[in-house]
Amino acid sequence: MSEIDMKLTDFTEHWEKDVDFSIRNVKHLYSEKTPFQQIDFYESDTFGRFFTLDGYLMLTEKDEFHYHEMITSVPMAVNPDIKNVLVVGGGDGGTARELSRYKSIERIDVVEIDERVVRLCEIYIPQTSSVFSEDSRVHLFFCDGVRYLKNLPEKSYDLIIIDSTDPIGPGEGLFTKDFYLDCRKALSEDGILINQHESPYFDKDRIQMQKAHKKLTECFPVAKVYMFHQAVYASGLWLFGFASKKYDPIKDHKPETWTRFGIKTRYYNNALHKACFVLPTYVEKLLE
Amino acid sequence: MSEIDMKLTDFTEHWEKDVDFSIRNVKHLYSEKTPFQQIDFYESDTFGRFFTLDGYLMLTEKDEFHYHEMITSVPMAVNPDIKNVLVVGGGDGGTARELSRYKSIERIDVVEIDERVVRLCEIYIPQTSSVFSEDSRVHLFFCDGVRYLKNLPEKSYDLIIIDSTDPIGPGEGLFTKDFYLDCRKALSEDGILINQHESPYFDKDRIQMQKAHKKLTECFPVAKVYMFHQAVYASGLWLFGFASKKYDPIKDHKPETWTRFGIKTRYYNNALHKACFVLPTYVEKLLE
Repeated sequence: MSEIDMKLTDFTEHWEKDVDFSIRNVKHLYSEKTPFQQIDFYESDTFGRFFTLDGYLMLTEKDEFHYHEMITSVPMAVNPDIKNVLVVGGGDGGTARELSRYKSIERIDVVEIDERVVRLCEIYIPQTSSVFSEDSRVHLFFCDGVRYLKNLPEKSYDLIIIDSTDPIGPGEGLFTKDFYLDCRKALSEDGILINQHESPYFDKDRIQMQKAHKKLTECFPVAKVYMFHQAVYASGLWLFGFASKKYDPIKDHKPETWTRFGIKTRYYNNALHKACFVLPTYVEKLLE
Repeated sequence: MSEIDMKLTDFTEHWEKDVDFSIRNVKHLYSEKTPFQQIDFYESDTFGRFFTLDGYLMLTEKDEFHYHEMITSVPMAVNPDIKNVLVVGGGDGGTARELSRYKSIERIDVVEIDERVVRLCEIYIPQTSSVFSEDSRVHLFFCDGVRYLKNLPEKSYDLIIIDSTDPIGPGEGLFTKDFYLDCRKALSEDGILINQHESPYFDKDRIQMQKAHKKLTECFPVAKVYMFHQAVYASGLWLFGFASKKYDPIKDHKPETWTRFGIKTRYYNNALHKACFVLPTYVEKLLE
């Protein structure tokens, strides 16, 4: 592990074999290779602090609210009675932070395979990670999400959020049919599963999107996809999956109940809840 | 003007002062400096052919359908009786091509300041430009759109589409209040104005978005904004403006009539028509 000297450098992510996204003149704050992955923290004028896993940008201070509001508000507006939540991955704390704004939630378990993600985010990105020390409903488990799910009693959670990296490296097991079946078992009868669902635009993301959707459709009676804008992810268009045993995200949408939570959001709103499930025609066709 | 030798090169656009988007290993097919701007054509594996004006990417063969379907389908689904259309800019032909799919449209006037854009697109990007030679309803005028509008009789058009570059260089006059007032005068009582409306994400685009919206709101009783995904534009999130003297894009949406046109789209659909006007909360606030 090493603190980096403070010369400015450029960060580049390969969005596709011939497409690069670069943030220039960044401070490379810290770099560490863990048993699981390479972790790097940077600071930039436009995005504030951001971090990467194996070179892939996870979040930036500027716009992490898009991702974290959309991964949490949608299920909470479909089943406002959610009490017990499991987050698989999400070691940065952003998803737990958004969940912690709901006073009615009783327990938020975060299962992160790599403790160093949490500890380093606690140092470098308190904007998302401070929830870990500030909310006693949040419980951290440092273990493999796949194993954690295998050993759970049935109906342990009302909501499982798979806040994972792409299906390469440590995130790979979180995109398998076995894992989705274990999630189904661990969910209550009115449980909801939300997962990071890749993107339709570039070929390599599109293939993973189609695989994930096919598997979810085979495991859950309801399996929908919704979209949001994340400028720092490949193409800027990104998806979450919504799967459940009984709730439909549109028919069972409860905007008034969600409004009564009194949560100020900057990206999500009641009208957007319905709109984000409406996909461009080519995306619909890719998911058929 | 010059044909370029066929060594592979990289194309980079600066999305923000410290953010770059790059397409690597491209063939630089052609380069020309006209009295108005620098025009370059490239070819890439992922995007097919694309062209730039003054270094800004205008369209790619891969995804120009997002832009061109969204700039034309929305007004046609609000007023399916549109007969006379003016396109200001749009020298690549993509907007005219989409309009030409509506057999009920009688006249499509394209006012492009730089004839070289049209002539070079006719050589390098027939996918959008072939409409100019194939549809006799399309009329090309090579002159300044600002002057063209100044000299028009009242109520000449049912639809004006401002398919312009950003408000720097030749596109600057197309973002002024005087120009919008001339458009209003040139529109029939049920006329609609659609304009390229920049983006909310990066500061420099956001400022232009806010200025354009303020001016349109001052000039038209109805002035709304809708969004779409364009991966090759800064941040991937882009906007069009919808302004009119009487039609509301949602209340006056006519999905059944639009469906009867029988037009196969790959991005736009009836549900998306309504959804694309639903903006993330931070964008709504920026437009207030």
